[in-house]
Amino acid sequence: MSSLPIVSITRRETFSSCHRLHSPFLGDEENKKLYGKCNNPNGHGHNYVVLVTVKGPVDAHTGMVMNVHELKQYMQVAIMDPLDHKNLDRDVPYFKTVVSTTENLAIFIWDSLQKVMTKPQLLHEVKILETEKNHVVYRGGTTYPRKKFDSSSLHPNNHQHNVSSDSD
Amino acid sequence: MSSLPIVSITRRETFSSCHRLHSPFLGDEENKKLYGKCNNPNGHGHNYVVLVTVKGPVDAHTGMVMNVHELKQYMQVAIMDPLDHKNLDRDVPYFKTVVSTTENLAIFIWDSLQKVMTKPQLLHEVKILETEKNHVVYRGGTTYPRKKFDSSSLHPNNHQHNVSSDSD
Amino acid sequence: MSSLPIVSITRRETFSSCHRLHSPFLGDEENKKLYGKCNNPNGHGHNYVVLVTVKGPVDAHTGMVMNVHELKQYMQVAIMDPLDHKNLDRDVPYFKTVVSTTENLAIFIWDSLQKVMTKPQLLHEVKILETEKNHVVYRGGTTYPRKKFDSSSLHPNNHQHNVSSDSD
Amino acid sequence: MSSLPIVSITRRETFSSCHRLHSPFLGDEENKKLYGKCNNPNGHGHNYVVLVTVKGPVDAHTGMVMNVHELKQYMQVAIMDPLDHKNLDRDVPYFKTVVSTTENLAIFIWDSLQKVMTKPQLLHEVKILETEKNHVVYRGGTTYPRKKFDSSSLHPNNHQHNVSSDSD
Amino acid sequence: MSSLPIVSITRRETFSSCHRLHSPFLGDEENKKLYGKCNNPNGHGHNYVVLVTVKGPVDAHTGMVMNVHELKQYMQVAIMDPLDHKNLDRDVPYFKTVVSTTENLAIFIWDSLQKVMTKPQLLHEVKILETEKNHVVYRGGTTYPRKKFDSSSLHPNNHQHNVSSDSD
Amino acid sequence: MSSLPIVSITRRETFSSCHRLHSPFLGDEENKKLYGKCNNPNGHGHNYVVLVTVKGPVDAHTGMVMNVHELKQYMQVAIMDPLDHKNLDRDVPYFKTVVSTTENLAIFIWDSLQKVMTKPQLLHEVKILETEKNHVVYRGGTTYPRKKFDSSSLHPNNHQHNVSSDSD
Repeated sequence: MSSLPIVSITRRETFSSCHRLHSPFLGDEENKKLYGKCNNPNGHGHNYVVLVTVKGPVDAHTGMVMNVHELKQYMQVAIMDPLDHKNLDRDVPYFKTVVSTTENLAIFIWDSLQKVMTKPQLLHEVKILETEKNHVVYRGGTTYPRKKFDSSSLHPNNHQHNVSSDSD
Repeated sequence: MSSLPIVSITRRETFSSCHRLHSPFLGDEENKKLYGKCNNPNGHGHNYVVLVTVKGPVDAHTGMVMNVHELKQYMQVAIMDPLDHKNLDRDVPYFKTVVSTTENLAIFIWDSLQKVMTKPQLLHEVKILETEKNHVVYRGGTTYPRKKFDSSSLHPNNHQHNVSSDSD
Repeated sequence: MSSLPIVSITRRETFSSCHRLHSPFLGDEENKKLYGKCNNPNGHGHNYVVLVTVKGPVDAHTGMVMNVHELKQYMQVAIMDPLDHKNLDRDVPYFKTVVSTTENLAIFIWDSLQKVMTKPQLLHEVKILETEKNHVVYRGGTTYPRKKFDSSSLHPNNHQHNVSSDSD
Repeated sequence: MSSLPIVSITRRETFSSCHRLHSPFLGDEENKKLYGKCNNPNGHGHNYVVLVTVKGPVDAHTGMVMNVHELKQYMQVAIMDPLDHKNLDRDVPYFKTVVSTTENLAIFIWDSLQKVMTKPQLLHEVKILETEKNHVVYRGGTTYPRKKFDSSSLHPNNHQHNVSSDSD
Repeated sequence: MSSLPIVSITRRETFSSCHRLHSPFLGDEENKKLYGKCNNPNGHGHNYVVLVTVKGPVDAHTGMVMNVHELKQYMQVAIMDPLDHKNLDRDVPYFKTVVSTTENLAIFIWDSLQKVMTKPQLLHEVKILETEKNHVVYRGGTTYPRKKFDSSSLHPNNHQHNVSSDSD
Repeated sequence: MSSLPIVSITRRETFSSCHRLHSPFLGDEENKKLYGKCNNPNGHGHNYVVLVTVKGPVDAHTGMVMNVHELKQYMQVAIMDPLDHKNLDRDVPYFKTVVSTTENLAIFIWDSLQKVMTKPQLLHEVKILETEKNHVVYRGGTTYPRKKFDSSSLHPNNHQHNVSSDSD
């Protein structure tokens, strides 16, 4: 028996969506001050670039960590179908109560991917470029170590709960 | 007396807008069939990349065709102010009756620039990248030669008129 | 009646192919000297980037020169199906007798597109990036004006004939 | 005596190669199903982009972790000479028995670099972009901790052994 | 009480500077040999690309790790004001005695950012692309663990001291 | 006898130079006002990207307009040798009296290439990207048609003369 090399593979896709930054926890003036032009009432939009990374041992027969076609399908179901050519705030239930910042979008995509992946433990990173100048990276971590991949992380309302409870 | 070299200079900016492709000349079913996912009722969005080119003789004292800061200001007024972080269809009067395809967006920007430029005859090209895969170029030409830079081309309704008369 | 603005639209795709530069008109030593490492007997490969531009009047009802989905389909049939994940020299009949330089690849794609387009007269430019450092552009012109879009230009052997006759 | 800042530096190169994905451990039908169009009998190709990262203390006199010219030379010998403008499967002995996936290509490059570097312990990461949409990253790790930089890792057949033994 | 997701956000800017690589610890011949064309007496220049990453919990009310406008301001003060359209060696006091390699530039920017940030502990990474082919990454670490964010790290002379003491 | 397709090929290179915009025809205050931060006394720098395009018939035997290695050599002699890792104003005689704007840099490169090319009539375009946001294009034209490729255009002082005579 022998060891296997650990490699990560990343797949890149783009999707075109619109949104408006407006937090339900803040008043209109506060929203305008905090989000500036991103708070425009009629919204604005982006060509989001998303890079999903899976990491694991390279299968000795196939030479692959995961078949990139399999990864592509996960991304189709978890990212492209719900988000591409959509209004994030109006077309995606998750963002009806969670403000659609790129940070929260990365968290949504992470949770969404974990629900559709056969081996969610291989998911390593979600990176989103909102513009040429700004991007975010999420690797599933939290301020307090939680049991990785526990069932609660599969609920889309998970982070919304955080939001509510955080106001305690 | 001597000749001056003719050089073109191009300035690149990006703006983030949302829109929906939906033609007032077509029924709902036709719109859906023609524009596909771009017809999504709640809209979608893009990081548009716009490249504006001016072309003319290089000034012998300054070594410039036009001061790029001047060009930047024209683009601020004619492009960034009306379009960036906006809903094209709702926030820009021009697109209330003209469908906001990238072709029409290029025509809008061309006309908009000509109205603010001191020497509109230097305007050479407007290029817009809607996504990484699609872009358009407009150089002000039409199917029938029109007198360049005549006053009518400065009216934003100009092309809307074309639209109306075309249905004759 | 009124004039219509003339706009060009461009669609970008990529395909991954392999080939070997080796001219049937030259001996082995000449080939090696002329093409250098591109003459490697077992071949090499590229991620070709192809940008196809159509140019024409903007339809007043649709706001489009051509539906980009239509252009995408033409490119699928004329470019992606015959060239993507293929060995240009062995899998594409055209290149069995024509050396697969990027120049000739652009000519092949131009002719291939014209055969599948409903309005071939709208085809304006084929641009191919072979690497990050080299690209070619073909707009259908020749050293001697030929009747544009005559039937002979639709034959894939057309340029091969040029090749043969040029050796006279 | 004082501490030195730890910085990583990365050098980017591109090489153009062809290959065919076909595993000797699988039958023809399995290969076709698993690798799809990448299994095309006559091969296909890519402009691979490779980014090699070394990481270490910044020398106080030179202000460098490693002279980038030195890194460039390592990459010339370990990557460009064996892989550029080559057929991976036929021109590189390593891939005669190992399927030339991007994962395995990263492992080959890692091992290849370690053999030519004066200080192989500075090698931090090998990243390969196969296309605009897919890339892999390898940092030398395995599923079971092995003594880093032991002599066996310098043998090119190392991972091939893994492959064999994995079929036990 | 609940946990908060940890996300990193990155902001990208560019600045255009000139410099000359020439170490005060080395003779003219050694400098020329070590730095090659980068040692050209009259200097050369770059469009530096800098990516600054902050990492921390996502605020439940704002959906942000840090307001990107705040990050932009830090970068304006710590990076753009002192470095953009400047001669690094002559206009920036720090580089009068420290050779302006990209490694040292990253260290300068890290220290410079920490001095202006309200929460310097969120600073995660400074990445600088000097050319399309070379980049460096600094995350504040040193060869000997030092107490993170201690007061001494806020002094710009800190690393210069390292340089001096290193010659002992 | 038959016609040959006309194709253009483009080669891309980068060079890293520094300069200062300061016109000898203007006073210090005027220079500062006109060029802004580009007038910084100690200079600044760029990674210039230059794309040189040649255009002509495709040779029927070689399938090439020009061997790209030949083009590369012309660019080495006419662009890289005099400009890369140099101070444009101090190291290049041409810019001692001509302000080193990107417009003038394009003209210098055009003239420089014509002097070293065996078939200067194939030179079609010089494009220079100074930053990600600004680029210029020069195709050799002037305000008054001059006999193309006449001997005077081969003198580097040609445009300097224009400068002088223009002040008449």
